[in-house]
Formats: sequence, structure tokens, C-alpha cells
Amino acid sequence: MNNRIKKQLEFVLEIDKEKNIFRQTHLSGHGRRENDAEHAWHMAIMAYLLKEYANEKVDIAKVIVMCLIHDIVEIEAGDTYAYDVEALSSQKEREDAAKEKIFGMLPEDQKQEMIALFDEFEAYETMEAKYAHAMDNLQPLILNHSNDGGDWKEHGVSKEQVFGRQSKTRLGSKQLFEVTVELLNQNIEKGNLK
Amino acid sequence: MNNRIKKQLEFVLEIDKEKNIFRQTHLSGHGRRENDAEHAWHMAIMAYLLKEYANEKVDIAKVIVMCLIHDIVEIEAGDTYAYDVEALSSQKEREDAAKEKIFGMLPEDQKQEMIALFDEFEAYETMEAKYAHAMDNLQPLILNHSNDGGDWKEHGVSKEQVFGRQSKTRLGSKQLFEVTVELLNQNIEKGNLK
Repeated sequence: MNNRIKKQLEFVLEIDKEKNIFRQTHLSGHGRRENDAEHAWHMAIMAYLLKEYANEKVDIAKVIVMCLIHDIVEIEAGDTYAYDVEALSSQKEREDAAKEKIFGMLPEDQKQEMIALFDEFEAYETMEAKYAHAMDNLQPLILNHSNDGGDWKEHGVSKEQVFGRQSKTRLGSKQLFEVTVELLNQNIEKGNLK
Repeated sequence: MNNRIKKQLEFVLEIDKEKNIFRQTHLSGHGRRENDAEHAWHMAIMAYLLKEYANEKVDIAKVIVMCLIHDIVEIEAGDTYAYDVEALSSQKEREDAAKEKIFGMLPEDQKQEMIALFDEFEAYETMEAKYAHAMDNLQPLILNHSNDGGDWKEHGVSKEQVFGRQSKTRLGSKQLFEVTVELLNQNIEKGNLK
């Protein structure tokens, strides 16, 4: 086995650990907490099936790979809950160190490619990044909505906090933002959001 | 929310159940059993990073979506262990019924597209299907190899059985088949395979 394949397979084995990074979101049916790998899988399929709703045409292959890898850094940096203000303040620093370490396991060309894709997602500027973020918002919303807002209730999340985050879905998809508002309003009516 | 988006989101929620379909493979570090969603996520990233080893150039977006959806039918049909002869005999019938039911939740155009992709994977004829199957073989091999062949030992799997399945990796990637042989030989030497 040559050194290039060896590096690639070591990276493949390393990212297996993403299956043990658990999020605050619970699976539908009031299930267990979801892990990052499952979340990324779900987002990637959603990205493909809902691509007609992106505000502009997207390079869907790029979006899907972005979705698949966007949380790999959390193997090192841990998951940061979207509404945890303290953890959010150190998130970038932790994730920057992590991306060097983890993607650095790959051959140099693939390291650069993966970091560029991760950075593009984080920068929230291209249509692909905005649409991928819309998936990152909508995926847990759908699960949490199906569980009667259990995750919001558990953490005492307010409607202002949720709208603050979810309103950026509009940048990726105006149509999916309309759906988001519809779902959030149902949860506000039920008293699931403070 | 119009009927098309409603159908798409109902499908998105339904496939959440794939995270509760557990395979015989265990996570690295002698972890818990892996579920189908994690397996598909892992395969999809591998497909992207190892695409240079496909025997012929592949439409990588198609391969990735194929990897992501190839086990969705198991929500209805259950996981069939690769070396369970009895379950394998009824697998096609169970999965054909399941694909109609699950992909039938989508709007008609997307139902047809997803079934066509699933059928292409199952037919093992196109370069994309052969390469995707190589990922379906290599992904659990890497995990099982990292766990000292624990899954084979648990089920008393023979080297003939493993080679019978893994030899088809050659159809998708000769280079990754060489890696496969190298890993399998290490496990045979250690006595991990009957």
C-alpha cells in the first residue's frame, strides 16, 4: 500500500469517530440524541432532494460534500450547541486548530481541498454555503418539530434565539424559509418556545 | 406549504428511521454497532476521497447520492447481513416492496429518480454502481480490520465467504482491491478468519 492510499485510509478510519459526537437534537419519535455523522447524512440527502428551492442554481455535488464534511472538526473540537453563548465564543479557535490536525492527515492536495470547502461553508458567502447552512438549520428543525419542540424546551430556548439563527435560511432558500416560519409559528402557538 | 414540499419533508422525516437500523459492523475502538445512516455517510465521503482509484472516471455526484440512499429500503426491509444465507434469499423481494413504499412518499418525479438510482446500484452494471459497491465493501472492512476482525469472529465467517464478497471490489477499483487483499491477508495470518 503506497503512502498516499495509507494516508487516505487513516483519515477514513479517523472520521469514524464522528459517529460518537452527539448533538442536542433528538431523533424523531422522542429517540436518543443524534450524532454528527447521522446529521451530515441527513443534511446531504435533503440538500439533493430540495435543491430546486435554492435561491440560485447550486453546484449540488459541492453542497453535498460540504454537508458531509462540515462537522468533521468536531471530532477534535466537540459539538457546540447553537444556543450556547459561552461555547460559541471559543468555537472558531477550537475548530481552526482541529481542521489543521484532522484534514492534515490527508495528502496535501486533499487537505487543502477539504479545508477550502470547510472554510467556504463557514464563510457563509457563496450560494453553496448559504444553501448548505439552510440544510444545517432545517434538518434539526424538522426533527425537533416532530418531537413537539422537546430540544427547545429542554434548553429553555426563546423564539428570538431560534429566529435569530433560522432567519439566515432565507439567504439560501426563500421558499424553505417560508416553511421554517410556518413550522416555528406552530411551535410558538403550542408554547414550545419561550 | 404546498403539496410538493409537504411530501418531500414527510420523506425527509421518514428516513430519520434509518438511524435506528443497526448493522453487524462495530465502530472502531471496539465500539457499538454501526447504523445504516452512519455507514452511508462514511461510504459517501470515502467515495469522494478515493475517486481517483475508480477503474474508469465516474460521475461522482451520482455515486455519492447512490451511497447515501442505497440502504433506505432497510427502514422497511431490515438489514441483511452479508453472510446470512437465509436472509439473503428473501432480500430482493423484501427490498422491492420497501422501495415502492418509501420512495413512493416523494413526488412522482423524485420517486422515479430515487428508484432508478437504487436499481442501478443493485444491478451492479454501471461504473458508478461498481465503484459504489466497492465502498460498500471497503467501509466495513476498514472498521472490522481496525477491530481485529471482531465481526468475522463473532459470526464465524470464513475467508472464502469474505473473498467471495470482497472480490467484486475489483470491478469498481483494481487498486482498492489490492488494498483489500492486503488487509484480508493480515487478518488471515492473525487467525481472524476461519
